[in-house]
Amino acid sequence: MSEKTYNACLLVIGNEILSGRTQDRNLQFLGERLNSLGIRLMEARVIPDVADVIVDTINQVRGAFDYVFTTGGIGPTHDDITSECVARAFGVRHCEHPEARAILEALYEPGQLNEARLRMAKTPEGATLIENPVSKAPGFQIENVYVLAGIPSIMQAMVGSLQHGLAGGLPMQSRSLTVEAPEGRLAKGLGELQERYPDVEMGSYPFSRDGRFAVRLVLRSTREDHLATAASELEGVVAELGASARWDPV
Amino acid sequence: MSEKTYNACLLVIGNEILSGRTQDRNLQFLGERLNSLGIRLMEARVIPDVADVIVDTINQVRGAFDYVFTTGGIGPTHDDITSECVARAFGVRHCEHPEARAILEALYEPGQLNEARLRMAKTPEGATLIENPVSKAPGFQIENVYVLAGIPSIMQAMVGSLQHGLAGGLPMQSRSLTVEAPEGRLAKGLGELQERYPDVEMGSYPFSRDGRFAVRLVLRSTREDHLATAASELEGVVAELGASARWDPV
Repeated sequence: MSEKTYNACLLVIGNEILSGRTQDRNLQFLGERLNSLGIRLMEARVIPDVADVIVDTINQVRGAFDYVFTTGGIGPTHDDITSECVARAFGVRHCEHPEARAILEALYEPGQLNEARLRMAKTPEGATLIENPVSKAPGFQIENVYVLAGIPSIMQAMVGSLQHGLAGGLPMQSRSLTVEAPEGRLAKGLGELQERYPDVEMGSYPFSRDGRFAVRLVLRSTREDHLATAASELEGVVAELGASARWDPV
Repeated sequence: MSEKTYNACLLVIGNEILSGRTQDRNLQFLGERLNSLGIRLMEARVIPDVADVIVDTINQVRGAFDYVFTTGGIGPTHDDITSECVARAFGVRHCEHPEARAILEALYEPGQLNEARLRMAKTPEGATLIENPVSKAPGFQIENVYVLAGIPSIMQAMVGSLQHGLAGGLPMQSRSLTVEAPEGRLAKGLGELQERYPDVEMGSYPFSRDGRFAVRLVLRSTREDHLATAASELEGVVAELGASARWDPV
């Protein structure tokens, strides 16, 4: 752990997310997991299975963030073009990775490793494989770009395989207070508190429950001591309004 | 309806989505609804509550897409900065909208319309309001940018309010075939079919159910006739492999 902050960008690749047919589940998982590793997910983009868009987007973000993760598009079908697009973005050859081929040869019965499946053995030249404990066909890493599967169970297992190799800073701590009051009444006191604690990020997320408006106030910081003081002051702000409140379980 | 195609970009604004605390639900809803209106969601970006990032992102995408939708950041608290950022992006003043003020005055008891809540009456100069039938505080539109609430029930109601004003092209039709076979066996036939039907987008989405691999093959097109022929040919491809398959309910 260091004082340096690390940031990341996620590229969710796939028409099925943009069409609404499939609900993405990978952003939420990755955001939470990266927080615990001291890496902040600062942007996510959902982009279609269009080669030029994928290539351009990778090149826009890989210089701007410490880490780039991609999900989707590494299977055997014609619409799985992430791997070749990453190669194009880096200007390197897209070629068979001997270890990936060996993994696939061990996986399939003789005669079943057809041309389509062999596409899953190709990576950008120089890539390092990311183990897939679920269905074997690996992901890969090239420089700061980590290419993962789209299926959530496989994506999560790949993150588990690689996370020990990710350098991070101080993990983000958070506390969350649910207040039985509309946020418009809390806004002034919360805003003043935010000004006095610039390194504690304060968010206000209203919701309605049983027809009553309530709000979840979230404090986040890498500084546990500042977080504790700010939390205590926040209780005071809420008490002054006479609103009932409780800290959510961590 | 016309032959012109219309595209859109969604900006999901909010730290709570990137941290993984909140699962976004607005992308899926908007993707589906726009499809039915003949508008294709071609990109979505999730960005944090950081003013410069919001301003820059709006200016990157508003020239590149026919429509831009934003969700989140239009409430009364200090972290609700979408409205002022849109004004900055367009280079116009951020000022009180008389109709929005009247809506808020009708909503709150005398004395309850405090300074924080009055922030919700401000829009970029020249904006048109978007009605909020759920909790009243409106969204707004300026040129091709539509600014919506982040809470899904309110966001959905706002889309309902504005959708009749959105010009669209031919709606996207789709059919989905679930095949009890691993996609690696289907890949070759599907890829060949895709080549013969360039205006029918073919996607392959593997999943596992009860420990067996299956795949959902999705055909999408604005041309109902091409879709029907491609679907019929796809049945042939699957039958040749001896795999069982069924069309999913539309």
